[in-house]
Amino acid sequence: MPVVKIDILEGRTNEQKEKLAKSIMQAFEENQIPKEWVTIMFNENPVENWAVAGDMLSEKIKKEKK
Amino acid sequence: MPVVKIDILEGRTNEQKEKLAKSIMQAFEENQIPKEWVTIMFNENPVENWAVAGDMLSEKIKKEKK
Amino acid sequence: MPVVKIDILEGRTNEQKEKLAKSIMQAFEENQIPKEWVTIMFNENPVENWAVAGDMLSEKIKKEKK
Amino acid sequence: MPVVKIDILEGRTNEQKEKLAKSIMQAFEENQIPKEWVTIMFNENPVENWAVAGDMLSEKIKKEKK
Amino acid sequence: MPVVKIDILEGRTNEQKEKLAKSIMQAFEENQIPKEWVTIMFNENPVENWAVAGDMLSEKIKKEKK
Amino acid sequence: MPVVKIDILEGRTNEQKEKLAKSIMQAFEENQIPKEWVTIMFNENPVENWAVAGDMLSEKIKKEKK
Repeated sequence: MPVVKIDILEGRTNEQKEKLAKSIMQAFEENQIPKEWVTIMFNENPVENWAVAGDMLSEKIKKEKK
Repeated sequence: MPVVKIDILEGRTNEQKEKLAKSIMQAFEENQIPKEWVTIMFNENPVENWAVAGDMLSEKIKKEKK
Repeated sequence: MPVVKIDILEGRTNEQKEKLAKSIMQAFEENQIPKEWVTIMFNENPVENWAVAGDMLSEKIKKEKK
Repeated sequence: MPVVKIDILEGRTNEQKEKLAKSIMQAFEENQIPKEWVTIMFNENPVENWAVAGDMLSEKIKKEKK
Repeated sequence: MPVVKIDILEGRTNEQKEKLAKSIMQAFEENQIPKEWVTIMFNENPVENWAVAGDMLSEKIKKEKK
Repeated sequence: MPVVKIDILEGRTNEQKEKLAKSIMQAFEENQIPKEWVTIMFNENPVENWAVAGDMLSEKIKKEKK
């Protein structure tokens, strides 16, 4: 019954999402919540749709590349 | 003023989404909440972005097809 | 697997929430999505936490009472 | 630490999203919440995925064009 | 930058939430996403606010107790 | 039609939430989106329900007080 929504930057591979989802299911299991009860969703958004730590994410990435 | 967000597997047709949204608006009406107050959003994610009932949805579908 | 999150003003009775949830489950059934697949959550917030149609909801209600 | 999720109709340019995100960061600053603490996400959905004010958004737009 | 929102039934202790959050942060670390980037939120709702697998959660619990 | 959901630490006064909501409505206006179209919701969660930057928020606050 827990619903886990993961808003994340676009671009992870399906394999990466699968590995992360399985690690999270295991995290629930370790805390006595059966993974069969859990729904996990990835909601991906492109870099232009994020602002973090006071700046657009796209600008942050440009600055770091310099 | 109620906001209804429906996270759903990608792939429904526009007609299916419209029918479902109208059925949900009617569900509010039947419960004395005017449909004019309600905002409904569909948020679609591909099969690779879901884990349900202990497994990736994509794996579940593969198994069922066998 | 569809997840339906309903953000709604605090104050509905449990009976009202149950009726509305059941109407919504039926709305999915009418559209060939089994209600057993659906998770519905009500997320209630007090009147002070909403702004709608250009004004705080609490102010709107005050004006309408006049 | 505040997380601001903006569900919005698909189609804004990156420049429009950036301007809006910056205006919102400033709105937090004006209220003594440093913009460095804030995460903003735009979640865009196409016109067919919205129902507002009692009708599908796509139908509303058609009617207004007439 | 990933934002993880966990909608969960009300009633976990603070210790349980802390343990689960730390397991989830570790799940990200194991997948090459530094835990420092991750924001986790628990959003708790009472049993009357959930419908799962075709029934109100409160009814399901009553039936299981019988 | 834009829906703005602000997940925020519990404890702001109603006056603070009102001021912030009005600043955000103005941010939309400045970007040619009428505030009448916007729905804003504050979703408040207690300090024990947050993990940020690699640690529980409650632990972070304890450390900063030392």
